[in-house]
Amino acid sequence: MSELTGPVEIIGTGLLGTSIGLALRRAAVEVLLVDESPDHLRTASGLGAGRPKTDGDLPQLVVVAVPPDALGGVIGRALETTSAVVTDVGSVKSRPLGVVDHLVGVERYVGSHPMAGSERSGPLAASASLFDGRPWAVTPHDTSDPAAVALVEELARVCGAVPVLLSPAEHDRAVAHTSHVPHLLASLVAGQLLGAPREHLSLSGQGVRDVTRVAAGDPALYGQIVSANSDQVLALLLSVRDRLDDVIQALDTGDRASLDKVLRDGVAGTRAIPGKHGGPTRATESLFVAVPDHPGELARLFADAGASGVNIEDVHIDHDPGRPVGLLELTVEEGRAEQLLASLESKGWVTHR
Amino acid sequence: MSELTGPVEIIGTGLLGTSIGLALRRAAVEVLLVDESPDHLRTASGLGAGRPKTDGDLPQLVVVAVPPDALGGVIGRALETTSAVVTDVGSVKSRPLGVVDHLVGVERYVGSHPMAGSERSGPLAASASLFDGRPWAVTPHDTSDPAAVALVEELARVCGAVPVLLSPAEHDRAVAHTSHVPHLLASLVAGQLLGAPREHLSLSGQGVRDVTRVAAGDPALYGQIVSANSDQVLALLLSVRDRLDDVIQALDTGDRASLDKVLRDGVAGTRAIPGKHGGPTRATESLFVAVPDHPGELARLFADAGASGVNIEDVHIDHDPGRPVGLLELTVEEGRAEQLLASLESKGWVTHR
Repeated sequence: MSELTGPVEIIGTGLLGTSIGLALRRAAVEVLLVDESPDHLRTASGLGAGRPKTDGDLPQLVVVAVPPDALGGVIGRALETTSAVVTDVGSVKSRPLGVVDHLVGVERYVGSHPMAGSERSGPLAASASLFDGRPWAVTPHDTSDPAAVALVEELARVCGAVPVLLSPAEHDRAVAHTSHVPHLLASLVAGQLLGAPREHLSLSGQGVRDVTRVAAGDPALYGQIVSANSDQVLALLLSVRDRLDDVIQALDTGDRASLDKVLRDGVAGTRAIPGKHGGPTRATESLFVAVPDHPGELARLFADAGASGVNIEDVHIDHDPGRPVGLLELTVEEGRAEQLLASLESKGWVTHR
Repeated sequence: MSELTGPVEIIGTGLLGTSIGLALRRAAVEVLLVDESPDHLRTASGLGAGRPKTDGDLPQLVVVAVPPDALGGVIGRALETTSAVVTDVGSVKSRPLGVVDHLVGVERYVGSHPMAGSERSGPLAASASLFDGRPWAVTPHDTSDPAAVALVEELARVCGAVPVLLSPAEHDRAVAHTSHVPHLLASLVAGQLLGAPREHLSLSGQGVRDVTRVAAGDPALYGQIVSANSDQVLALLLSVRDRLDDVIQALDTGDRASLDKVLRDGVAGTRAIPGKHGGPTRATESLFVAVPDHPGELARLFADAGASGVNIEDVHIDHDPGRPVGLLELTVEEGRAEQLLASLESKGWVTHR
């Protein structure tokens, strides 16, 4: 029963729905597409994500991939009109469950949430490889049928992802911490820049660019997401406001110890985020290379870096305004920077650590 | 008088002081080094940043590069004990000025602040190219001698930077917006992660990593910096708290319009940050490439990308845990992604947009 034999019906052919269709078709699973927008439906099926569903199609699994506000209703209709297992891929799990938990057949519903996305949206942004290696939260409720849970885990695996089992409430607490609160505070940081004269913003460095990047995401979508998780988000925001009050009080009274505590907790928080590949954060070190800003220079640099035999863990191009050359930060495992540095300098690159 | 003939005395041989020494020596300007740590002094002169100052040396310019808390006192002593022009490279400009503005000779003082730094510190992290192409704020006060201002602008230019003239108060307002408030809020976001169970953090994506990156910086240094600019930072934090209260209120009452306003202001704020090279933000688009995680693959990718003739504006490696392959985001000028995509796909890379 945990074998995904198809067909899989996908309701909603935006970025996630279409990407799931493409990933399933890659695995030769039959996919039935449903979307109230004929344009999206045509685009998604044109891209090879499946075929439009017709009367008489009997899905093994229904995947609901509609905007957060519509989730509960669409999941409920899928439970009522099919005998299939039903999942959804929404960013919040408790609220849609609350809409359907009284329905006959709710044991066939298992929520899920792939940790993949993009600042882009719509079927044209979709990709069969969007989920490769990503965590995919699977969130059974108390009465979920174990076979249904296994089938949704299998969906995640067939799409290339790694299923992570959590209860709906745990999931919502987790993403409030790791996604919703960071997004809202990034929006507040970005918003306060509007109060600065334009010429002051020429002093912007990489730091403020990093802090605010997620705030560029679609306001309509994020409004729905944080609203759907408002209980968890509210609880955290109230505690963040208390800490902000501590900072304000500390600055007002010159209380360096309290300020220091907030800054030290921040350092500890950055270290608590798991590293690449889900393991504990590996110790890394960085070095910097000046790179002329025209085609081919990055190629030359990475060819030289590759020849050093040192694996590059991360790359960051420094965007400070006014720089005639780019400054590239290369992050490598601790203890390997010296070797890479020597190798790059021997090839004439201007580096520093 | 605006010609920088040297010698230049540098007080404090940390990252910035030593880098300035290296940049000046690159331009064959004589550099005299002073540091209360004999180790730092020896390291900096050993790196070629200048020679230790001896009695009888008469500097043309003194550059004070000591921690924020010590700035005012050291600037004052330099004004009293030399007849040189005096500048400093501290992150905050009004407070040290307030310490020295009653001194005889204050017309020889002109504050400055190079927009360059690193999460690393100390002379070993220094580089002659640290300032190349960076903005370097030069902040004359009302009674600064124009010739002294010109000499400090020349210092910035000789170090490879682009001088930007602002008043001390304007500078401090600007960096409160672009650096101090973003840093403190990043610390709050990172700090709230400590309240999440370890396994919940496995759902961390690139967003929270970006938002919190600067919060990894040295708490002792940032405590001094934000304290020295507490008036400006406080004013902004109070307004951020008001907006945070709006968000809390909006989530509590389900007021989508207010939430939407905050999110939309965030989007507008990200667009207000000037783009690469200080020009208006250029429209860009991104594409994604799956890259196996071992040495040489990035080299191969950038060689293929270079061959496409499309200039890469930004690179981002996606660090989501559990990924067996890296996902590399390449940002290019709007309208060029198609060309790069086609070129990479013809070479066998798995891409999506």
